[in-house]
Amino acid sequence: MRMVDIIEKKRDGGVLTSAEITFFVEGYTNGSIPDYQASALLMAIYFQDMTDEERANLTMAMVNSGDKIDLSAIEGVKVDKHSTGGVGDTTTLPLAAMVAAVGVPVAKMSGRGLGHTGGTIDKLEAIEGFHVEITTEDFVQQVNEIKMAVVGQSGNLTPADKKIYALRDVTGTVSSIPLIASSIMSKKIASGADAIVLDVKTGDGAFMKTEEDAKQLAQAMVKIGNDVGRKTMAIISDMSQPLGLAIGNALEIKEAIDTLQGKGPKDLEELCYTLGSQMVVLGGHAASLQEARQQLETVVMNGQALEVLKQFIIAQGGNGEVVEHQDLLPQAQYITALPAKKSGYIAKLEADDIGTAAMLLGAGRATKESEIDLAVGLMLNKKVGDYVEEGESLVTIHANQQDIAQVEQKLYDHIIISDAKVEAPSLIRAIIMT
Amino acid sequence: MRMVDIIEKKRDGGVLTSAEITFFVEGYTNGSIPDYQASALLMAIYFQDMTDEERANLTMAMVNSGDKIDLSAIEGVKVDKHSTGGVGDTTTLPLAAMVAAVGVPVAKMSGRGLGHTGGTIDKLEAIEGFHVEITTEDFVQQVNEIKMAVVGQSGNLTPADKKIYALRDVTGTVSSIPLIASSIMSKKIASGADAIVLDVKTGDGAFMKTEEDAKQLAQAMVKIGNDVGRKTMAIISDMSQPLGLAIGNALEIKEAIDTLQGKGPKDLEELCYTLGSQMVVLGGHAASLQEARQQLETVVMNGQALEVLKQFIIAQGGNGEVVEHQDLLPQAQYITALPAKKSGYIAKLEADDIGTAAMLLGAGRATKESEIDLAVGLMLNKKVGDYVEEGESLVTIHANQQDIAQVEQKLYDHIIISDAKVEAPSLIRAIIMT
Repeated sequence: MRMVDIIEKKRDGGVLTSAEITFFVEGYTNGSIPDYQASALLMAIYFQDMTDEERANLTMAMVNSGDKIDLSAIEGVKVDKHSTGGVGDTTTLPLAAMVAAVGVPVAKMSGRGLGHTGGTIDKLEAIEGFHVEITTEDFVQQVNEIKMAVVGQSGNLTPADKKIYALRDVTGTVSSIPLIASSIMSKKIASGADAIVLDVKTGDGAFMKTEEDAKQLAQAMVKIGNDVGRKTMAIISDMSQPLGLAIGNALEIKEAIDTLQGKGPKDLEELCYTLGSQMVVLGGHAASLQEARQQLETVVMNGQALEVLKQFIIAQGGNGEVVEHQDLLPQAQYITALPAKKSGYIAKLEADDIGTAAMLLGAGRATKESEIDLAVGLMLNKKVGDYVEEGESLVTIHANQQDIAQVEQKLYDHIIISDAKVEAPSLIRAIIMT
Repeated sequence: MRMVDIIEKKRDGGVLTSAEITFFVEGYTNGSIPDYQASALLMAIYFQDMTDEERANLTMAMVNSGDKIDLSAIEGVKVDKHSTGGVGDTTTLPLAAMVAAVGVPVAKMSGRGLGHTGGTIDKLEAIEGFHVEITTEDFVQQVNEIKMAVVGQSGNLTPADKKIYALRDVTGTVSSIPLIASSIMSKKIASGADAIVLDVKTGDGAFMKTEEDAKQLAQAMVKIGNDVGRKTMAIISDMSQPLGLAIGNALEIKEAIDTLQGKGPKDLEELCYTLGSQMVVLGGHAASLQEARQQLETVVMNGQALEVLKQFIIAQGGNGEVVEHQDLLPQAQYITALPAKKSGYIAKLEADDIGTAAMLLGAGRATKESEIDLAVGLMLNKKVGDYVEEGESLVTIHANQQDIAQVEQKLYDHIIISDAKVEAPSLIRAIIMT
């Protein structure tokens, strides 16, 4: 088999066989196929797309390129959730606790974040004593006992994907549906998921700017998952404005606890129930999304979900009292209101730029080497469609620096107030079950 | 400027500016742009094509990437000819001698061949004493005196094209009209041509298999040439069967001499007159193709063209007597007829495979390291449309080896005889003047 023939076949619109895809993925991973041939093939895929079968084969070839996590010692269907990422996305923790409280095991492998705020692990480290370095044995035992554990990424998972992703980034081949879909799905499958729920964001703060693109990606991933024997569902959710009210690490932990106490922001709560219902159905604990939702509402109302979060924190070395005493979380030194300069309706909260304002405070990493300040961040006081009086606080800024002029300016620039009434954007844009 | 932005612009169908094209060509040549970004751009160009202006800019950026030959000391318009290559293409020498005899200076830079037979320089070396190592001064003086000289390639011409071509070869981006056209044109322009005549072959033995593709390439090259200030014309000519009768180095020198004596094969003669007419017009020695053709016919009939060839051979150290005494050329040891197995009309002489048969005898190089045997080759006794009697010789095989069973089998496999009458293919398919 010659790589140039594979490139030409795809270039001419042909369908690559499983053997050809494996030849490429293995060869590129072990270095026998050079970067310049891989990038030519990726660009040909960009233009010619891949069939469902090619996408499934590419995904599994990437899964097979490295280690695979074996979660078979955990009882039940392991359902993983993946979000394509956005601003103020506090979903993972309250969602995991709710679902676990219903009985679906949550064995989550998580990473540190690069961007507006930290990743789930960074956020959890806002809780005193919490750590994610646990052995596989302890991890399995913890999930079997309390249904929820989060561990740091370990092992050499999907090295092919890592290498291909790095190449795509510098060769103009990032925005290709088959390549994005297989990249995400390969990581989830290698991490041991039996079933997968996907939250594909759309809008200004999302990777997929348009709803149409987000739908295409979601459908592609659901198809791959089901084709390779992992039951998969997806939703399309709004990311034209930040999700919830908190953008920052400790602030989002607080918001997660609020949500499990039934007093979280409505959009975050709704997103947790929607994704959670899919997880509970895929986990085999309910026959319908409606039934699943009732179970989730019950465990939030009766406090079982919050109790799972507390047990989970304690099991991983953290101070469980944080769920009752949120003042145990790191506090920023300077708390400042951002007064509205005029009265009117919030027309836009431009997610990407508001996230950048939080990063300027130190809430996120600009580069891998950056240090995160867990205490800082933003609390939105208004969301799109809300009315604001002149002088009323739009955002509460939590800072550990006195000079926040640049942050304030960025927020003013990207919070648009309109005289005319504005409709709040709907959060859940689509639910994709097959 | 960032290469990834240039790749994405072209990927999305944008038009690259001259500065962007130059950035790519210079950066790739000096190594600051890596192969993997270059191949991604080339594949994007494959799909998105280039405008006329982009093609002209790419051509000139490649010309400017290395040395440029200065032929300004030669009087008159320097008209160069380029053929896209085929089997038994003896055109260069008789064409050059005819045109020079009319007064158009022929300052030819030529190479050695890789393929069925050698290149023009290899063929010329069949003449005892002939050499192409001449200084620029002697080269210029020779053209001014006798209007014709052939020199080996020297200097660092179009290094960008060499590097890009090598990359295209392994990344499935060879067959792209803007890339092929700019590659050919950049080499001709860097070699100092004021005007260019192109012979684009079509058919089984050609790089462009279909007439439509050949026309597209020819039009692309003519447009580039005229856009960058080099008057350019082209023809499309048949390469479904070998050109002329000789396939081999010394055999083709003999055929070239025959042609200048007015007794060459009709197709080769016609091709020389057609291309020569364009060269004479572009060289400013005739106002119309018809007038130019009359001039060429005259210098062939009165022997002036043959005399130019003789003076040219003598000037470059060769034995000029070869034009009267062709037995001075290397002779093969074994001359064998290939008898027809049945009577009928020649339906096909599959050019590519017949060329390979000649290469098997040693007439051409399979790799750069191969040694050429100048004496060996094939003389066709029949061409497509001719009638052959069973037992009559189809081909005369000139070999320096006794065992030619493999060659004979290849010839039988690719010379198709039909019971029904067959039309001879027309040689000149199109003439492209702008």
